Amino acid sequence: MSRRVCAIVGAGEGLGRALARKFAGQGFDIAVISRTETNSAAAMSAATTANGSVSVRFFPADATKPETVEAALTAVARDMGEIDVLIYNARGDFTACEPLEMSYEALEDIFRVEVVGAFAAARSVLPTMIKRARGSVFFSSATAAFRGSGTFPLYAIGKFGLRALSQSLSKAYARNGVHIIHVRLDCDLDVPIMRERYGDRYDPGGLANPDAVAENYWLTYLQPKSAWSNEIELRPYTEAWTY
Amino acid sequence: MSRRVCAIVGAGEGLGRALARKFAGQGFDIAVISRTETNSAAAMSAATTANGSVSVRFFPADATKPETVEAALTAVARDMGEIDVLIYNARGDFTACEPLEMSYEALEDIFRVEVVGAFAAARSVLPTMIKRARGSVFFSSATAAFRGSGTFPLYAIGKFGLRALSQSLSKAYARNGVHIIHVRLDCDLDVPIMRERYGDRYDPGGLANPDAVAENYWLTYLQPKSAWSNEIELRPYTEAWTY
Amino acid sequence: MSRRVCAIVGAGEGLGRALARKFAGQGFDIAVISRTETNSAAAMSAATTANGSVSVRFFPADATKPETVEAALTAVARDMGEIDVLIYNARGDFTACEPLEMSYEALEDIFRVEVVGAFAAARSVLPTMIKRARGSVFFSSATAAFRGSGTFPLYAIGKFGLRALSQSLSKAYARNGVHIIHVRLDCDLDVPIMRERYGDRYDPGGLANPDAVAENYWLTYLQPKSAWSNEIELRPYTEAWTY
Amino acid sequence: MSRRVCAIVGAGEGLGRALARKFAGQGFDIAVISRTETNSAAAMSAATTANGSVSVRFFPADATKPETVEAALTAVARDMGEIDVLIYNARGDFTACEPLEMSYEALEDIFRVEVVGAFAAARSVLPTMIKRARGSVFFSSATAAFRGSGTFPLYAIGKFGLRALSQSLSKAYARNGVHIIHVRLDCDLDVPIMRERYGDRYDPGGLANPDAVAENYWLTYLQPKSAWSNEIELRPYTEAWTY
Repeated sequence: MSRRVCAIVGAGEGLGRALARKFAGQGFDIAVISRTETNSAAAMSAATTANGSVSVRFFPADATKPETVEAALTAVARDMGEIDVLIYNARGDFTACEPLEMSYEALEDIFRVEVVGAFAAARSVLPTMIKRARGSVFFSSATAAFRGSGTFPLYAIGKFGLRALSQSLSKAYARNGVHIIHVRLDCDLDVPIMRERYGDRYDPGGLANPDAVAENYWLTYLQPKSAWSNEIELRPYTEAWTY
Repeated sequence: MSRRVCAIVGAGEGLGRALARKFAGQGFDIAVISRTETNSAAAMSAATTANGSVSVRFFPADATKPETVEAALTAVARDMGEIDVLIYNARGDFTACEPLEMSYEALEDIFRVEVVGAFAAARSVLPTMIKRARGSVFFSSATAAFRGSGTFPLYAIGKFGLRALSQSLSKAYARNGVHIIHVRLDCDLDVPIMRERYGDRYDPGGLANPDAVAENYWLTYLQPKSAWSNEIELRPYTEAWTY
Repeated sequence: MSRRVCAIVGAGEGLGRALARKFAGQGFDIAVISRTETNSAAAMSAATTANGSVSVRFFPADATKPETVEAALTAVARDMGEIDVLIYNARGDFTACEPLEMSYEALEDIFRVEVVGAFAAARSVLPTMIKRARGSVFFSSATAAFRGSGTFPLYAIGKFGLRALSQSLSKAYARNGVHIIHVRLDCDLDVPIMRERYGDRYDPGGLANPDAVAENYWLTYLQPKSAWSNEIELRPYTEAWTY
Repeated sequence: MSRRVCAIVGAGEGLGRALARKFAGQGFDIAVISRTETNSAAAMSAATTANGSVSVRFFPADATKPETVEAALTAVARDMGEIDVLIYNARGDFTACEPLEMSYEALEDIFRVEVVGAFAAARSVLPTMIKRARGSVFFSSATAAFRGSGTFPLYAIGKFGLRALSQSLSKAYARNGVHIIHVRLDCDLDVPIMRERYGDRYDPGGLANPDAVAENYWLTYLQPKSAWSNEIELRPYTEAWTY
């Protein structure tokens, strides 16, 4: 049986690392796509530790430059084999600002990383997935995709667009046997950047564990095609959700 | 290790049967709650066939009479052990009518089976689940929970209420370690009653396979509590979804 | 030109009074339907004060008994003329409780006042409105119609059902020229009961003024049928909305 | 009393014309912002015909170039007076394509006209509106803002982003007394371009009349600030809505 390949665009120390570990643990070869190999070192190491018998490779790309994303994923398919699972996990800057402080450049940047880059990644793998009538494409997203924000408007604008893209792809290509999933995190993740952000208020019980989130990507991958979810929500049991 | 118990309220020939088979196959003892044992014969037989080593038992109750639901689930806990998984799968009458044709009785009936009965079932198991800090409660629902209908208004009114109940329970008790899930089918199921309804237009590819749906209850059961879904949507890959 | 009639089911000292005043001020005869004339005295007096030339009459009904609602609205049509505007403004008990504290009776009661009573009112006027190809039916609702609650589950369950009813009626009968509107208040109203509830924290700036809300019913009434809203949301400019 | 100014960005022969006519008829001076005066001739002529006593002026801008939008609105404020009502009515190309046919340029173009241009317009007027604690900003949108599309993905991606922007602005600045409204058309408009598109299937009864839609902008402008809508939906009474 041929090997299966999972490509992760945007694999840092948080969710990306957990995803690399999970899919490697399940026997997938792992392609990590990021700006620099240094950024991805933790994810690659986690994958290798989880399963020494799979191949783990790095391919450089800048999510804000769609041609580089295409080039990287083309190289993955050529060097490692056709991609079975694509996870678009790149994310724009997550800095608070009030809407009137947004610059046009910041708006275009967030759109490029959240939507154009996601589309570039999807476009690189979908024709082959459609031909093979199989494959899964995950977009890591957030509850920001469901509502605007007076304090994080850029993030909301990016995630709304990502959700529109994900739904559009699903509606067009699910019938070809390709599973496209918008994963909505309705909470913050227990990752280094959040620990720092929370400081004294840090409480792991109130955050989603990245390994638990990655487990859900895996469970969703297992869904039979006669009963697929195209949008999933995830929150820790402690979350006082308002949506 | 003690045995695990899955109680299914409303287990006919369709999804109920598939759920009984799936959870029996995973080693759960199965309690089937329905008006008559005849209605549940297919589900019970499927469970036994799937796994001869589990206990499969019938308990009578009428979903429109909440006290009977409570009595049945109390009997399950007493006779089979604490319930780990409760699936409320009863459903009201699914007959087309225009809104002005609804009778007050039909309105009250749909509310009783979709909401009061679901609450009776949840109320019977939640205190123990909260005490044990574990347990899963599934409510089988439909896209009708998301939008009214000029042709199936009763079904929509019932499912809206069921969704409100499910969200309310989640928001109150998830923090106690109890997983509550509203399962939204965004399609028709490939079950006997639907085959009849479709007649010449019957096309299994356009319907969700009950076993595939049941598989998703199982996958959702496996979610770690740090990243739970409280509402899941399911549709076959062929579905031209409008929501 | 014949007189226009506005019937208000549930007209207390808050929004009901403001609605009676507004529609009387616009020249409508006002029918007030409530359990006792005492409950409606403020609304009736406000209507008469707003416009001494319109007729203001009381008809008794209990919103939890649909037959009495039908009888009252039949009497309105017979005694005052065909109803042009129906406003269903009755509301169930708004007491906090956690979901497990709900009784079956409380569930049925909330459903009766929020859904069955609303349907009884609509059913009493719609056949004539359809025949005349005009008329407006308003359902007073709340953001509770959009999400469950761990603290006010009954209210959410009732309002979800009301929204399903309103959408179903719209989808079935808008094409007949009847305007059906679900009015979603995304805030508390500045009414006596809320002033009491807030106590020391009472701040009128954070609440919607009932006259401002009533003005919106009027503006919605003015919508041309080629561009109707079937669901409207209202919140004060100070509201930090989360939806 | 000083004159009131309504600025319309994107005023062609359809809704833009109807909006110019409506607000001119209500006594507003009208600033029309568009690429060429020729594109706006119908709107300007409709405004002048509706009310010969108001000033109607043209200012050039290209909605895909935010600086030109800013420059135009700055010129409006300088030459005509502070803007009371801003309507962003520019719209991207509405051509069907399947998602995989989208080019990166088309994605960036739709984002520029639907989101960046809308933000440029809002940013030009909001600081003054906030200072004066009054003003209304309308964004013309569509049901495409609520769901992705397998056939019009660009339009959906643009409108999702526009909705995120509108919500974010509302949540940040409503408290300053500025009314921000996302107007969702849940249907096609009865405008020249749609008549052509429908061809033989053209049926005005199934489309929203632009004057009826413009009337709703006006009614929304009249909302008192204690009970505002931030998102409104509009559809003709004939619409078989699915949302």
